[in-house]
Parts: sequence; structure tokens; C-alpha cells
Amino acid sequence: MKKGEMLYEGKAKRIYATDNNALVWVEYKDSATAFNGEKKAEISGKGILNNKITSLLFSKLHQKNIASHFVKQLSDREQLVKKVDIIPLEVVVRNTAAGSLSKRLGIPEGTPFKKPLVEFYYKDDALGDPLLTEDHIETLALADKEEVELLKQKALQINQVLTPFFKELGINLIDFKLEFGKTMDNEILLADEISPDTCRLWDIKTNERLDKDVFRRDLGNLTDAYEKILTKLGENHHV
Amino acid sequence: MKKGEMLYEGKAKRIYATDNNALVWVEYKDSATAFNGEKKAEISGKGILNNKITSLLFSKLHQKNIASHFVKQLSDREQLVKKVDIIPLEVVVRNTAAGSLSKRLGIPEGTPFKKPLVEFYYKDDALGDPLLTEDHIETLALADKEEVELLKQKALQINQVLTPFFKELGINLIDFKLEFGKTMDNEILLADEISPDTCRLWDIKTNERLDKDVFRRDLGNLTDAYEKILTKLGENHHV
Repeated sequence: MKKGEMLYEGKAKRIYATDNNALVWVEYKDSATAFNGEKKAEISGKGILNNKITSLLFSKLHQKNIASHFVKQLSDREQLVKKVDIIPLEVVVRNTAAGSLSKRLGIPEGTPFKKPLVEFYYKDDALGDPLLTEDHIETLALADKEEVELLKQKALQINQVLTPFFKELGINLIDFKLEFGKTMDNEILLADEISPDTCRLWDIKTNERLDKDVFRRDLGNLTDAYEKILTKLGENHHV
Repeated sequence: MKKGEMLYEGKAKRIYATDNNALVWVEYKDSATAFNGEKKAEISGKGILNNKITSLLFSKLHQKNIASHFVKQLSDREQLVKKVDIIPLEVVVRNTAAGSLSKRLGIPEGTPFKKPLVEFYYKDDALGDPLLTEDHIETLALADKEEVELLKQKALQINQVLTPFFKELGINLIDFKLEFGKTMDNEILLADEISPDTCRLWDIKTNERLDKDVFRRDLGNLTDAYEKILTKLGENHHV
């Protein structure tokens, strides 16, 4: 496998072509951004941690028959993945109220939901990633009704795997954001990453934040928090 | 019928008890507010115009078998209505992109939708009336799934009456906001008002705004615009 030309550079990753048209090479950057890019920093080692954590979580999901674009980890900060066209929707699953939802709806942070909530946001930086209803998704022609239903079901399935998995590690999976893409064969696959950048992860005993809120809210050392997650995942991984 | 003690004062109306426990007396005020109360003014005569317009529109809907809380117009600025507990949802129907939707989703004002959109907003001034998904409505226990479906169907039915009705008058019904309430018998009824305060109404030929955007955006004389609507409705009413 050869790393070809750079196809795309996002806030957290660079994507390169390979000599296989169906596969791309992902490189995780050390950039941290929050509040739609208003807050930025370079945090040495973050890309390595997120690459390793995402690789472990996608492998875990594969074991549970949940397909994703992930093929294999190539190096500390690189992955090989299937090439997909990203559907411009952020699919958010929430088990406990936190962040923007708490603020918007006046539900105190830490309030558990009776059942998980699924939300869709429009992946559009210029618009600030607005919340969408299903009518909006249809009107904007971002996905049809069947696809929306499929994304919801997949997101809830992933939650059913990840929530107990993190619980075993002493971590409360508060919420997380997923992205999906379409392969050349029009299959919808889980894509992007699952990492402390895209999840809220609280220590079950102490409620310590082990995710990007450490950066958003200046709560301490980000890589220390991410290392804790990787260590716990790695320990579990080797069992 | 006797006007009793004041039960409630809102931004645009005062509600009084009557000697019949199932009925309340509504008085339309001249206050204009926009942007969640940040912009305010007293506009002499506005209450009279909205009372008359709402009375005509609720009568029109009754003729088409769409029930509401409206019983009868009592005076220039007063109405008799059935007492309901307002469901804290603003139900918005949109035929054409405008206002907050255009801004949030980047769809230019004036873009017609292939089919009408229904949106729900949380009636909560402190939170700024945030947009809600159906999952949010369920989580906040504001209405159950069947009630949400009912509200949607009623809103679309009302749109099917009002859109051609306004079209006959040379007016494009761009969007409108409805509120619903529950009677003592737990019946869900259309309530509140339908007026240029709660609709976007554009002259079909000139796109002249004949609604509260005149106030929101300082486009001219508000009562002149509302008078135009009342005159057109009144002419039609007498045919």
C-alpha cells in the first residue's frame, strides 16, 4: 500500500489517496478545535491518542458485527479506511444531558435520559452545524426518510455496544457524535472517528471529564485525560 | 357574560375570567415585541386589528370544520374563547423559506418548499423558544407521540385551508405559528391567535411584507400593513 496525494485536510485529519481506489490513508493531526473553530490549539500527541482509540473502538464494533470504514491501523497516527462520501449529517446519541443540549433545553448537566436521544446536525461550518429536524433533512435533500431511519437504528446499535463496554471500564458514555458515509457500492458505513474528541466520557465514580470538554472548558491536561481512556481500553483489549 | 378578574397577562393579550368556568375573556393589547422581547413598542390600534383578523380567520376555519377555542368577538379588542391549558409548543408551518429558517439552514428567503414543513419550538422565553425535535418533545414530556402526530396533522389541515384562502386575496402565506391547548375535557383545540403577528404574509405581486416583519425589520408602518390584511379579509368575508 502506497500513500498517494493528499485528497482533503479537515480540522483533525488529513486524507490521502492510495494505490487502491477503494481505500484511503488517514493521518490524525494534533490540532484541537472547539466552538466551530473559534478555539484552537496544537496539542502534541493528541492525534496519536485519537488514532489508537478510534482503531480500538472500530475493532470492538467489528467484533460485534457493526461495520465501519475502518480497515486497519497503519502506524501511531495513521489508519487505512474504505473510501466513502461522507453524508453531511452529524448523528448525535445522548444518554445523559450535557453540553449544548443542557443549555438549549434547560436540562441540568448529568441528568440521565429514560431512553437515548438521537439528534441530527447539519455538517456545515459556515452555518455553525445547526440542529435539524427530519423535515429539514428531507427539505435539504441530505438523506431520504429510509436513510434517516437507518442512521438512527445504526446509531442506537452502536450505543448499545459502546455504553456497556465503557461501563466495564468505569466510564459513563454521556453522548457521542457519529458520521456515516456511502461507499462506491452505495453502502452506508460508519466512518470518521470515535474518540474523546467526539464522545463525552465521564469517570463513573468521580465524574471527571475524560474528553474534549477538558479543552473546551479548560479543565486540565487534555492528553492526560485521553491517555487514561487509551490505557483503560488497552487493558481491556488485551484481556 | 361578565368580565371577571385578570388571570394572565402575556406579551400581546390579557386573559380574564368570566362567570362561566369553561370560558375566558381575551383582550388584545397594542404591544409589539420581537426577538424574544428584546425589541418592544406600543403601536396604537394593533390590538384591534389582530382581534378582528383572528376572529375572521377562526370563523373561516370553523366553517371548514376546524375547531378552535374561539367562541365569538365581543368588541373591537375583545373575544370570548374556551378556556384551555396551552401546550407549551409553538407549531410552525412553513410553505416558503423565510426568517430564522433561512438564516439557520442557509436557504434564501422566498425559496418555496416542495411540501410544507412543520416545526416545533419550545414555548420558553428564558430559553429563547428553542427548536425541538420529536425526541426532545418526548424527553421534556411536553406531549406524547400521538399528540405530536395530531398537532402536525391539524397544522397541515389549517395550512390547507388558509393558503388558498389568502391566495384568493392576493396574499402569499409564507409561514405561520400556531398554539394549541387542552380543554377541561382533554380535547386538543387550536388556540391563541392567527394574525399578522403570527403569520408571514407577502403581497403576491409585489412581495410587500404585510406582517410583523414590518416591525422586526423597520420596513414601514405596521398598522398600515395590518389594515391591508383586514380590508382584504373583510371584503372577502362579505362576499
